[in-house]
Amino acid sequence: MDTLLADLEALLGAEHILTGAEATGWAFSSWTRLGAPRAILRPATTQEVSGILRLAHAAGAAVVPWGGRTGLVDGAFAEGALALSLDRMTAVEEIDPLGATMTVQAGCVLEAACAAATAEDLFLPVDLGARGSATIGGVVSTNAGGNRVLRYGMTRDSVLGLEAVLADGTVISSLNHLIKNNAGYDLKQLFIGSEGTLGVVTRAVFRLRPRPVSQETAWLAVDRFEALSPLLRSLESSLAGSLSAFEVMWPAFYDLVTTPPAAGRPILPAGHAYYVLVEALGPDLIRDAARFEQVLTDALESGLVADAAIAKSQAERDRMWALRDDVAQTARNGPIITFDVSLPIAAMEAYVAEVRGALAARWPQAGMTVFGHLGDGNLHLIIGVVEPDTRSEIEEMVYGPLRARAGSISAEHGIGLQKRPYLAYSRNPAELALMRTLKTALDPRGILNPGKVIPLDDRQSLT
Amino acid sequence: MDTLLADLEALLGAEHILTGAEATGWAFSSWTRLGAPRAILRPATTQEVSGILRLAHAAGAAVVPWGGRTGLVDGAFAEGALALSLDRMTAVEEIDPLGATMTVQAGCVLEAACAAATAEDLFLPVDLGARGSATIGGVVSTNAGGNRVLRYGMTRDSVLGLEAVLADGTVISSLNHLIKNNAGYDLKQLFIGSEGTLGVVTRAVFRLRPRPVSQETAWLAVDRFEALSPLLRSLESSLAGSLSAFEVMWPAFYDLVTTPPAAGRPILPAGHAYYVLVEALGPDLIRDAARFEQVLTDALESGLVADAAIAKSQAERDRMWALRDDVAQTARNGPIITFDVSLPIAAMEAYVAEVRGALAARWPQAGMTVFGHLGDGNLHLIIGVVEPDTRSEIEEMVYGPLRARAGSISAEHGIGLQKRPYLAYSRNPAELALMRTLKTALDPRGILNPGKVIPLDDRQSLT
Repeated sequence: MDTLLADLEALLGAEHILTGAEATGWAFSSWTRLGAPRAILRPATTQEVSGILRLAHAAGAAVVPWGGRTGLVDGAFAEGALALSLDRMTAVEEIDPLGATMTVQAGCVLEAACAAATAEDLFLPVDLGARGSATIGGVVSTNAGGNRVLRYGMTRDSVLGLEAVLADGTVISSLNHLIKNNAGYDLKQLFIGSEGTLGVVTRAVFRLRPRPVSQETAWLAVDRFEALSPLLRSLESSLAGSLSAFEVMWPAFYDLVTTPPAAGRPILPAGHAYYVLVEALGPDLIRDAARFEQVLTDALESGLVADAAIAKSQAERDRMWALRDDVAQTARNGPIITFDVSLPIAAMEAYVAEVRGALAARWPQAGMTVFGHLGDGNLHLIIGVVEPDTRSEIEEMVYGPLRARAGSISAEHGIGLQKRPYLAYSRNPAELALMRTLKTALDPRGILNPGKVIPLDDRQSLT
Repeated sequence: MDTLLADLEALLGAEHILTGAEATGWAFSSWTRLGAPRAILRPATTQEVSGILRLAHAAGAAVVPWGGRTGLVDGAFAEGALALSLDRMTAVEEIDPLGATMTVQAGCVLEAACAAATAEDLFLPVDLGARGSATIGGVVSTNAGGNRVLRYGMTRDSVLGLEAVLADGTVISSLNHLIKNNAGYDLKQLFIGSEGTLGVVTRAVFRLRPRPVSQETAWLAVDRFEALSPLLRSLESSLAGSLSAFEVMWPAFYDLVTTPPAAGRPILPAGHAYYVLVEALGPDLIRDAARFEQVLTDALESGLVADAAIAKSQAERDRMWALRDDVAQTARNGPIITFDVSLPIAAMEAYVAEVRGALAARWPQAGMTVFGHLGDGNLHLIIGVVEPDTRSEIEEMVYGPLRARAGSISAEHGIGLQKRPYLAYSRNPAELALMRTLKTALDPRGILNPGKVIPLDDRQSLT
């Protein structure tokens, strides 16, 4: 064992460092690509995280933070690096019901944090498909989006304070609990969404919200793309402040999730151009139901909506969400690549047509299913791979047409390693240079999640 | 004229540089403390701002950005520096009604930007007393708060994209229009709330909201501090998503604004411990009025509220807001100092009592009026000055007791020069060191608004 690992063992205790086959075994048991780490480190405290980084910094050793390891862009790929797992730091440390805040350690699973808030009759609004595995540290460091961004914003909007450890081991304790605090630079923003490249998040303070009482859910059919945006604006206005989801599905997606072997069955007849899952969260069961029904009746009468079904029970609500969440069906006909882009709603129809056209011209048999959080400008494109070694060709088809439309190659999944070659499609040279300035200032030796998000130089590339 | 000024004149044209008596005349006509600038520069384009900074950077000359120059912490103090006024860059460049975004130049006055959004039936929710003078650049670079933070967040929460110019003249064009964009670091966060010390904001893209239809306003009397927080939580929950103001006034404030020479008259009898202005913005005139009345009736019946009056007309709503906004009355008995702090609601009563006690022990005749955006944890304390040269003694009385309560010396006004000596009361040494790291990385020669927010070294102090 080399000196660095010996020092780390002295710091953590031998039982909290995995090396060799033990480390690769753990890494390879994940369904995401993690590589073979030099060692897996499992600190129990912020002080231990600080000690690890101090040693790694002195040695110039790469450190890759690990949360739930279910990210989609290889952000936790740790081949040859020290994997710093926060899985022993899982406590919900404090909930202040009066102030409506909670303090959580980075390794706490999102679902557990949400449950702890709910137990105090409060609401942590961050919610995504990976809720049972994603950790607070991962959710914060990737600025996770998810299902309720329309109403509550991205993860960034729920974070009041953070504790993070810099590359050299300095602990930045910025555990603000206040909604308003303009006392100097808002340092937490550096660590939110920077994917562990500027610091390791160890604790977060969240702003909690009143727990919603009512959940109104409906499934709509819409026949023209041009109706979607007016419908969204109209619902935002008439359901003021309570509209929490506006999820649009293109017909290929609806077909997949409502036909065997999928468990789901159609809610409205097939054949419409778009299907929309709409949800509002409110304070009053009876009044909210009446308002929701009235608003959807108006939408039907206005012609924006062709058909609609309102869920009348929790079972019906669950059934609607289950269709939307059954994304796994998109993989049933063979290998796929999942994309996560955002662009102005006005540009979406032409964008989807352009990608579909390019794909069909190259591989007439390739399938493409489209769905997304349209209220946030966020589309997921799932493209079937019909020929090996064509990933970059497909990526170019999807990312290329975003350039002229001021779109983003990553709405919510982040950049990691996978999207790094395309970052310049969404960000200009001055922005990339400023990102490098920040990276160099905060991590001069380039040890933190090296090669992720922005390539600094060849030495730091792990791919 | 020295070389730098000659170069600047060649860049901007002689008519757009003020020097000597012309410059000091303009500076001294402001009611805030601006000092005597070396010159006032009035660029018309981002390229001219870039050119100014390139020249100033080469010469190591201090540059102080000027917006509306109505900040409260001497953030625009420019003694001996180049004052960079954005007052010729006032255009509302674009409003996208479908995407609900607007792009505005930094010198545009906030009120004009709000009016432009309203003309498109949309809503820019940033609102504060200085709306008629504050500019977009100032509002963004100070992360302004104001009256509707409770519902819509601080200015930061409405900014989607920014264009800013770095100290060396590099233009960072990050004019994102997307709600979701995780493509690399969120660079705009660097320039929001850093008070012009890391870059000069030249353009901003805002997220607009649906324009509210109903405005429900009420004036409440509350007899116990312990009732305020449960009342707030209950209204947040029952008015889900539509509660936009929860403004609490201590009785001394209510007395001042309802007795001559103030124009206002009491809405509820005097003698209550606290008065609260509550507002909700909603989508439906009739339903919202019914809900608001029901919610307040419930609050009365629960005993949280001792008395209540609901505004029945726009005139009554205006009358309630006029009382809350008549802050000028706090100066009618002599010189005052205005404070802007935030702290957990649970700590407020003891905090106010401690400040009041210390003040009374030192100057029994000194007046103190307290009011604030309690829903945001934000209190304004107005303290009468009875003896000259006691400012720092009074500041210590107000800021000192925040340290043990994890409070902030600046909820919304910023740090500027005035609060700089107390920044360490709200931020720890590691945070201050990281702020300095950022400042050094982005502005290595220290030319941007030098001495503001964080002192770097003695050379950069302007006081």
